[in-house]
Amino acid sequence: MPQLQPVTALADVAGFRTAAVHCGLKNDRPDLALIVSDLPTTCAAVFTQNTFAAAPVHVSRQHVADGDIRAIVINAGIANACTGRQGLRDALTMARETAEAVAIKPEQVIVSSTGRIGPMLPMEKIVPGIHDAAGRLGDGDVSTAILTTDSGPKTASATFTADKEYTLAGIAKGAGMIHPDMATMLAVITTDAAVEKTALRDALRAATNVSFNQISVDGDGSTNDMATVMANGAAGGVELKPGVDGWDAFVSALTTITQDLARQIAADGEGASRLMEVHVKGAADDIAARKAARAVAASNLVKTALNGGDPNWGRILSSAGSTYLSVEPDMVRLTLGSKLGQVTVIEDGAPTGADASRVVATSEVVFELIVGDGPGNGTAWGCDLSPEYVDFNATGST
Amino acid sequence: MPQLQPVTALADVAGFRTAAVHCGLKNDRPDLALIVSDLPTTCAAVFTQNTFAAAPVHVSRQHVADGDIRAIVINAGIANACTGRQGLRDALTMARETAEAVAIKPEQVIVSSTGRIGPMLPMEKIVPGIHDAAGRLGDGDVSTAILTTDSGPKTASATFTADKEYTLAGIAKGAGMIHPDMATMLAVITTDAAVEKTALRDALRAATNVSFNQISVDGDGSTNDMATVMANGAAGGVELKPGVDGWDAFVSALTTITQDLARQIAADGEGASRLMEVHVKGAADDIAARKAARAVAASNLVKTALNGGDPNWGRILSSAGSTYLSVEPDMVRLTLGSKLGQVTVIEDGAPTGADASRVVATSEVVFELIVGDGPGNGTAWGCDLSPEYVDFNATGST
Repeated sequence: MPQLQPVTALADVAGFRTAAVHCGLKNDRPDLALIVSDLPTTCAAVFTQNTFAAAPVHVSRQHVADGDIRAIVINAGIANACTGRQGLRDALTMARETAEAVAIKPEQVIVSSTGRIGPMLPMEKIVPGIHDAAGRLGDGDVSTAILTTDSGPKTASATFTADKEYTLAGIAKGAGMIHPDMATMLAVITTDAAVEKTALRDALRAATNVSFNQISVDGDGSTNDMATVMANGAAGGVELKPGVDGWDAFVSALTTITQDLARQIAADGEGASRLMEVHVKGAADDIAARKAARAVAASNLVKTALNGGDPNWGRILSSAGSTYLSVEPDMVRLTLGSKLGQVTVIEDGAPTGADASRVVATSEVVFELIVGDGPGNGTAWGCDLSPEYVDFNATGST
Repeated sequence: MPQLQPVTALADVAGFRTAAVHCGLKNDRPDLALIVSDLPTTCAAVFTQNTFAAAPVHVSRQHVADGDIRAIVINAGIANACTGRQGLRDALTMARETAEAVAIKPEQVIVSSTGRIGPMLPMEKIVPGIHDAAGRLGDGDVSTAILTTDSGPKTASATFTADKEYTLAGIAKGAGMIHPDMATMLAVITTDAAVEKTALRDALRAATNVSFNQISVDGDGSTNDMATVMANGAAGGVELKPGVDGWDAFVSALTTITQDLARQIAADGEGASRLMEVHVKGAADDIAARKAARAVAASNLVKTALNGGDPNWGRILSSAGSTYLSVEPDMVRLTLGSKLGQVTVIEDGAPTGADASRVVATSEVVFELIVGDGPGNGTAWGCDLSPEYVDFNATGST
């Protein structure tokens, strides 16, 4: 198993240098980060699929496809999203200025921006900031320079051993989260017309599609999401891939780090005071289980109940069920737990009558939902939804 | 065009009688509704697809399939959802007692329950309530007896003329709504291992699937949603169906009513002070346009911005884009409007720089997003998300 080492920074990994500077996008805090590899790298990245993906996403997606990424430049405060052709020019300028400052090619730079959607980047601040950062490359704390509404940095690291010992380190940001929810809708309509049965059914379906169905919803994915990993081989050793010794250990370490960071992001949700971890087990496959777990973690009703310390388990089942996963009704089991204990509220598909109030009013809760005896398992993380979240976002800081 | 007649009640439609009684599920207000047709009907219904569909949904779905529905019995306060086999028995008992009380067969009864998920129905209150209602059939106000957290009843009606004049009337309930949202997520990971490029990409994708992707979400649909229409032919006249004169007028009237009710539900969202109407136009097809409109109306970030009267249009684009609809970037146009005026904030795909603050701080706002020149159009409705919504749901009344 990989060992978590919370203190290892990106620049503690051999061959990487970092810099964090204040260029003027945010008040009195670092707002521009630069990460450079002194050696050639292999690099992978996943980007948002949002239709209105931000300009830096378009630029970076192309650069990652081209290969040998050597630097990542990130500004916080403005997302450079929904900024049209000028936004694209600004993202390309960020790549070009970074390349010039650290003596590489523009297509070796990943550009990332995070913050408010809509405004143009103040390039008269960004460009000097990039050159300032390039002059300070070392072990600058980039984990704080990428933050927006976060209450603090998210870092994780791990080591694993194959032919030798390797290190991974990671940082993340994110606090404005992303969630659907559910309601009870009911309508009764009478008519004194005579209507043929099949025709009536079709008519109601069509009417519902443009009325009741239009007041509930799905979807997520912001304009700027990106996760990237650069590997520079500074430790020496064999090139890892499936079939090579150490490959499984690498995958395990990378998974550990990304889950750790994800959990930190969930715990730092805007206005949040409670973290929830949701396990769905026994589903038909992992995809169904993950989707159901995610739906629970994202439900406004589950999140508000959690805020109130209310063990409203009906909302947990309802949100999981909104993903239409297959269940064995008589095998459904739901347990609410925390460091204060565990309470099973559904057993063999029926309520046990147990009161879970005493276990949910704490900082970290775990929901385990078993839906059958299938091989599919999934976990998701979320946080409570508080009045503070609403107040915070009503004033539009991002 | 069908004429809206806000005052026509279900029982004003020929051949229908209604009763509303207090059976003790809610404090000091009607909580059980009975709707009866004195003539045979054709009936159609759409039900939630939720995996954990409530017991009455299972019973009613079967009864509607069997045909000739003559009565609908509805209780408010407890949803009879996630209640296992006892819940199913209770729903069947509601059908049987209703049938006995109005001298029809149990399979001619639609059963519906709405309210809190989890608790068992107190049948010692429900059964007498059903018989009480059956004894009072007339023009009882069922529109208020079906409410839970609603601030008031939702009613709509319309007439249309074919060979003669026909009437439709409708009621609805629903105030706890149902919404996803979006965030900015960013992570940078370094390693000093050497990793083959394709393998690294695959590893990150796999890691992301069980970490970052697990903190955002989609899905909706409660355990109890149902919309139903009964047609009893009491007005006489020809049986309407496609190809018959009057069919189009009927469809139009039904659509008008369902949209009217849907809009009322959105406007009465828990804690809401503002209604938003979202139009997406020029998409590839209606389905894509509706999905995008729904995503905007359901976005927590759009909803919180609306609560604050903040014209944060970046969130509107981002939420629409989260549905991955196709756009013509240079044709994107976004207009925010209300009775206070209209402001176009995106034109030809780029920000106009116009400030829409003055038009959004009002009780009804309209967002119109044009994404191209395709034939697809869609509309959705939503409301703001307020601290009151959170407070309300943190204490778990439903």
